Amino acid sequence: MGPIPDSNPVLPGTHWKQWHHAIGGELTDVPEDSWNTVLKEKHPEMLHLLQFPYNGEPPKRLTTAQPVTPNSLHFVRNHGGIPLIDKDKFFLRLDGLVKNPKTYTLDDLMDESKFPRMKKMITMQCSGTRRIEQISLYAGQGDEVPQAPWAEGAIGTAEYVGISLKKVIKDCGGLLEGGKHLELYGAETYFKNDEVMNYLVSVPWSKVKANEVMLAWEMNGEPLPKIHGYPLRVMVMGYIGARSVKWLYRIKAIETPSLAPVQSKEYLYFNQQVGKHNQRPTDGIQIQEMPVSSAIMSPWKNQVVIHNGKIRCKGWAYSGGGRWPERVELSSDGGFSWYAVPLENMSKKGQWTWRTWEIDLPCDVEGWIEIVCRCWDNALNTQPLAVRAAWNWGLHVTSSAHRISVYSINKSRPLTAERIEMFKAHGQPIAPITWPEELPTQTWDEYKDFFKKYPRDADNEAV
Amino acid sequence: MGPIPDSNPVLPGTHWKQWHHAIGGELTDVPEDSWNTVLKEKHPEMLHLLQFPYNGEPPKRLTTAQPVTPNSLHFVRNHGGIPLIDKDKFFLRLDGLVKNPKTYTLDDLMDESKFPRMKKMITMQCSGTRRIEQISLYAGQGDEVPQAPWAEGAIGTAEYVGISLKKVIKDCGGLLEGGKHLELYGAETYFKNDEVMNYLVSVPWSKVKANEVMLAWEMNGEPLPKIHGYPLRVMVMGYIGARSVKWLYRIKAIETPSLAPVQSKEYLYFNQQVGKHNQRPTDGIQIQEMPVSSAIMSPWKNQVVIHNGKIRCKGWAYSGGGRWPERVELSSDGGFSWYAVPLENMSKKGQWTWRTWEIDLPCDVEGWIEIVCRCWDNALNTQPLAVRAAWNWGLHVTSSAHRISVYSINKSRPLTAERIEMFKAHGQPIAPITWPEELPTQTWDEYKDFFKKYPRDADNEAV
Repeated sequence: MGPIPDSNPVLPGTHWKQWHHAIGGELTDVPEDSWNTVLKEKHPEMLHLLQFPYNGEPPKRLTTAQPVTPNSLHFVRNHGGIPLIDKDKFFLRLDGLVKNPKTYTLDDLMDESKFPRMKKMITMQCSGTRRIEQISLYAGQGDEVPQAPWAEGAIGTAEYVGISLKKVIKDCGGLLEGGKHLELYGAETYFKNDEVMNYLVSVPWSKVKANEVMLAWEMNGEPLPKIHGYPLRVMVMGYIGARSVKWLYRIKAIETPSLAPVQSKEYLYFNQQVGKHNQRPTDGIQIQEMPVSSAIMSPWKNQVVIHNGKIRCKGWAYSGGGRWPERVELSSDGGFSWYAVPLENMSKKGQWTWRTWEIDLPCDVEGWIEIVCRCWDNALNTQPLAVRAAWNWGLHVTSSAHRISVYSINKSRPLTAERIEMFKAHGQPIAPITWPEELPTQTWDEYKDFFKKYPRDADNEAV
Repeated sequence: MGPIPDSNPVLPGTHWKQWHHAIGGELTDVPEDSWNTVLKEKHPEMLHLLQFPYNGEPPKRLTTAQPVTPNSLHFVRNHGGIPLIDKDKFFLRLDGLVKNPKTYTLDDLMDESKFPRMKKMITMQCSGTRRIEQISLYAGQGDEVPQAPWAEGAIGTAEYVGISLKKVIKDCGGLLEGGKHLELYGAETYFKNDEVMNYLVSVPWSKVKANEVMLAWEMNGEPLPKIHGYPLRVMVMGYIGARSVKWLYRIKAIETPSLAPVQSKEYLYFNQQVGKHNQRPTDGIQIQEMPVSSAIMSPWKNQVVIHNGKIRCKGWAYSGGGRWPERVELSSDGGFSWYAVPLENMSKKGQWTWRTWEIDLPCDVEGWIEIVCRCWDNALNTQPLAVRAAWNWGLHVTSSAHRISVYSINKSRPLTAERIEMFKAHGQPIAPITWPEELPTQTWDEYKDFFKKYPRDADNEAV
């Protein structure tokens, strides 16, 4: 057992960088610009999973430190470079199956006489959150391509200001016959195999019509950071982060979900038992809403926890599609008995937000235990109990109950308290627990007395 | 997923080597002599786990290639250097609580007029067999000290020739009042913390009296190899290998199990929930007999297996204490449904031996499956189903059902057979399964037709 790692594996993204350098011109500097933006806008303790395109998440203890995530600590999942856009030259085009295609400047969109303001607290989650658990179980699509090995921090909550996309569509005269989906174009360069394009996905009109798709320019009271989509991004409430396009420059009304690769061939929830050789894109369920999920942010996996019969646990719970966590339960016995988090220890409900929580989880036993966390949302959805149950070929949506192994030392037990004092008095550390210790628990006389009372071997004579 | 490893982690044993070098004199060369003996006596494909003291096991495919293990492939678990003993200067001393303490040369012991010959087929198993599975689950005592991370090869079967220890004790006039255990001294240097000694353990008189403890000088028709205890070793039938002392030079009758550290403080089966800080030696069950266990030797963990609806599996099964495998069962669905190995595919029963087996295990499903193996012995003992159930602080006796993840490709399915042909025709390898493949499974027309028939989104109008 080594020290608890304070970082996930970091991938440099060499191929993406080489591509940009090879193209030349303005694109040459994109990898360096991206990294400089990270250094400028993000917290120094961010865990970098992929340097370029930049992917990073906050460390566990900072992820749920507050119910609202500071901008510098919000996770980032970029698919290309970070476009550095001049707000004054920016415009948004609306076309495709809309009655009157139009072009808007940022000032047009901010004109409150035309478009009423919206302010929403929204939790955004990457469909790759907790992917590391699936990777650790079985290899799947994407464990050898640089898909980020996310832990539990690929989720964040912020207050966004902007307008409803529905109003903008109405301003264009509404949709033409057959218009059922909106394609959203981001300005970043995106490439897959030999195809190069901008980042492109779509959302259904039904979602837009419900005023659940927002065009946002403000995040937690500040202009959008460059790394989060300045000057304008989409926020699709209750959908995975991949649909909330950053650096938005075009919206196109179309008949079917986008055929662009991000929508048609990626972010698909594949069958566990169909792999590379006969996987068809149509076998994958498109990942839009996230199912109910949760994570334990403290203690850490493999941590040695010295406690008084109760282990303080912290974490988050979330459900997509406008559902919210109603109950969070923890187990210290691998998922047999469950303790509900007291309601006063949960952050408040929001239709589009997570809830952070804390609990003093009873634990009598010492040694390796397994702490498990699960959530029930307001539609009574809950999480599968094992990673395998929700393992899927694309390694997306790790929604199984979160399990962590923890080494429990319960000092409410007199013998344990005594031993800990003895270790302290001799300046001997308890951890690493596997290092031989030099303070005998027993004298030879105690040893011999023990076996006089409880012999090693069964006697074939005595009764 | 990297290539299947062909070796376990190798530890050099630097501290042991330094100790010998520091002592000087004859002991200086012990580490080098040991390694030279390995190179001379053992198969070139042995997997070296610890260079000094030498610990090694055969690779999977060679472990169960034959029901009797060739000497060069038999696993080795040494605790010190390999004594290079001159047979003509050798003598065995018998003392302690025997009526007439005596000293024997090898010729004395080989005198058939005094001691009738014994020939026995015996399987020997290290209590550390399959330890790697426990290490992978939780850290425990010994994962940071150089205890060997054994896989499934720390077991071997050979025919030994020698005499019963019972007859030698009788030749000394039998035991004195109170003599209940026999201490067995090996000539190798053994050290633990600051204590230096010879290797020393004990067996109970009841075991000796049953003629189940043998003094052996021949292994598979050859004199004992140096690495296996030349010129004389103990073979304790049905007990763990640690009791079968090599390079035997003294036997002492005593009242209680030996207080030497190997017997009193090691090879103990500790409680899962009591760890370093308050573990007492008396909390451990002395490991003498091994419980029923088994292992899958083919296919390998993480192997991509292309099959016709049945996966050929091979392995071993064993039970200690004179019990033997009656039934071996395999599952390809993680332990839900079980197929018994046909009796004609099992090697024959022996009171002290393993049984090797083969089965064509039905498997329809493709993708990641879990093959599980369990054994029932003649006392109807069977194996716990999960590693955790049998995990113990000392990481000994990994007796849980053996589980391996395998990637199944079933070419009895027409679509799969077709795709495999397509891969072949294009010279594209199937493995690694996670590498992106370039042969589309679907045209855009097929994609579009699919969604006309089975739309992505539920319609709120149609019935």
